[in-house]
Amino acid sequence: MSVRQVRVGDVTLGGGKIAVQSMTTVKTSDVTSCVAQILRLEEAGCDIARAAVLDEEDARAFSAIREKVHIPLVADVHFSARLAVLAVENGADKLRINPGNIGGGRELSLVADCVKAHGIPVRVGANTGSIEPHFFEAYGRSAEALVSSALENVALLERKGVRDLVISVKASDVPLTVSAYELLARRTEYPLHVGVTEAGTERMGLVKSSIGIGALLVCGIGDTIRVSLTSDPVKEVYAAHDILRACGLEKDYVEVVSCPTCGRCRYDCMGLAERVNERVRGVRKRLKIAVMGCVVNGPGEAKDCDLGIAGGGEYCVIFRRGEVFERVPAAEAEERFFKRLEEWLA
Amino acid sequence: MSVRQVRVGDVTLGGGKIAVQSMTTVKTSDVTSCVAQILRLEEAGCDIARAAVLDEEDARAFSAIREKVHIPLVADVHFSARLAVLAVENGADKLRINPGNIGGGRELSLVADCVKAHGIPVRVGANTGSIEPHFFEAYGRSAEALVSSALENVALLERKGVRDLVISVKASDVPLTVSAYELLARRTEYPLHVGVTEAGTERMGLVKSSIGIGALLVCGIGDTIRVSLTSDPVKEVYAAHDILRACGLEKDYVEVVSCPTCGRCRYDCMGLAERVNERVRGVRKRLKIAVMGCVVNGPGEAKDCDLGIAGGGEYCVIFRRGEVFERVPAAEAEERFFKRLEEWLA
Repeated sequence: MSVRQVRVGDVTLGGGKIAVQSMTTVKTSDVTSCVAQILRLEEAGCDIARAAVLDEEDARAFSAIREKVHIPLVADVHFSARLAVLAVENGADKLRINPGNIGGGRELSLVADCVKAHGIPVRVGANTGSIEPHFFEAYGRSAEALVSSALENVALLERKGVRDLVISVKASDVPLTVSAYELLARRTEYPLHVGVTEAGTERMGLVKSSIGIGALLVCGIGDTIRVSLTSDPVKEVYAAHDILRACGLEKDYVEVVSCPTCGRCRYDCMGLAERVNERVRGVRKRLKIAVMGCVVNGPGEAKDCDLGIAGGGEYCVIFRRGEVFERVPAAEAEERFFKRLEEWLA
Repeated sequence: MSVRQVRVGDVTLGGGKIAVQSMTTVKTSDVTSCVAQILRLEEAGCDIARAAVLDEEDARAFSAIREKVHIPLVADVHFSARLAVLAVENGADKLRINPGNIGGGRELSLVADCVKAHGIPVRVGANTGSIEPHFFEAYGRSAEALVSSALENVALLERKGVRDLVISVKASDVPLTVSAYELLARRTEYPLHVGVTEAGTERMGLVKSSIGIGALLVCGIGDTIRVSLTSDPVKEVYAAHDILRACGLEKDYVEVVSCPTCGRCRYDCMGLAERVNERVRGVRKRLKIAVMGCVVNGPGEAKDCDLGIAGGGEYCVIFRRGEVFERVPAAEAEERFFKRLEEWLA
């Protein structure tokens, strides 16, 4: 958690609750498609959406989009102070810019004055593709280069009087991402936007983002997260929540723990675990359910679960917090377990 | 990396190379099924397989299984020193036991003498379900309780003269797993077997294992890893390799980086990234390929890639290490890119 807090619309970054971000993939000026995508992101649990501004139509579209969505919108603008200002005037709740490519000192002043006047924050940062050349020369492709580059961008905006800042230092290399954010967290008090960039396709992107973002979150680093997947952005939001849950930072959901099953398992533990997962998806209640392979280890290993089932030979057991309270024939076990589960969910 | 090294068959734990483990899910005494599963695990890249020993038939099956597979086999035995000894006599390359439930001091001596005579290592450890009661009372469900419990088991075997030990302290809670291993790594020189236990179904298991195992690996903690999924164990092996790759600990493969795509993307970047992934799966060559959404950021962000493509409007560019060397009409881009890719792979 950062020392400073920054507000993006009605979302606070740095206050302890980690905000989930994603980015639209349609042309921003296509208001209908953009709104539809943001509404889907909202429903999936997205807290802040970002949209690219490539031209005047995109910048102007912010006002129409904002009227129809319910979460804050970030304008991602490069190479043009004019477009950045136009996006803010049209209601962008935050800017993502690179002070080094916005056009020069006078242009940066225009943007700085605009965000100050509108009271909105700016995210700056570096990724391995945008390390400032002198830092790249001095430090190579390293955490030090990423952090120095990001903090130089911070200083540029601070000199223009901007204080509502959020910082990122992304790499597609996971250990580099982790070490860069660890270094950055020691050197700044601003909220951190954490993510692994160009994480890849869905599967590898999930693994890389889980490790990079998760390793930082378990150390208390990160105020807002973005999972980058080359896939439907709704999946980025699902992945972000899964990471938050796995890190113990999101609690109001039904957790299903299940053992990997081994030679001791004598019933369809995997299938049942999937069906239980299906049933509880979306339930906003804090519960922990166990689907365990064997009676020998199951109840003991799942002592901390509110409800559990473990397979035996001809009989399964249903247990609560490690205590077996029902022994049922294997053939009826699933039905009986779901009955108990419904009682808990009610 | 641990200070001590331990050999499991021809695999060294603690030597820097992280060994991938998995566990069979069929009855061990069903030799045909067990061998078939282990051969599939081998092909997927499993370095060490573990099998549960529930009865004498399972223990005796180790000799028949070992003749037909090529990776070391671990016998997972509880509640019976006799079965543990029998498994070792039948060729188990390592034992996984819990000294606390093996039957008492005399029984533990039998097991200790047996593993010393055969020169094989033992894994001991604690998980949240098997914390020794006195440590649970003293420290609750904590990293301290897990580590104290595991090290007490280590001491029990050390007192019997066993020195080839591997230790684990698993929880299904990711932050607890991470903090327990961090504590354990400071207190022991033995190789560590790292994993998140009862990680859950495929999706959440992948996220939890990625974070837990990945966060430790990027800190240099862990000598052998097990991803626990309530799913086909072959998927555990795939996940383990994905985690190792994401952590930069496995290099001989083709990495495909791709950006998440945004409003700037004007071609089927996602589809192409998937098709490139499909093509390079299994290629044991160190290459980095980029499939980027836009010409603006793509080549720069993927400077470190051996080959890349970035979409524009009517034209795409193909680049090498950030330098564009070909500009091709969008309609022909994929075909041209695959042609270049084949040249690289040849």
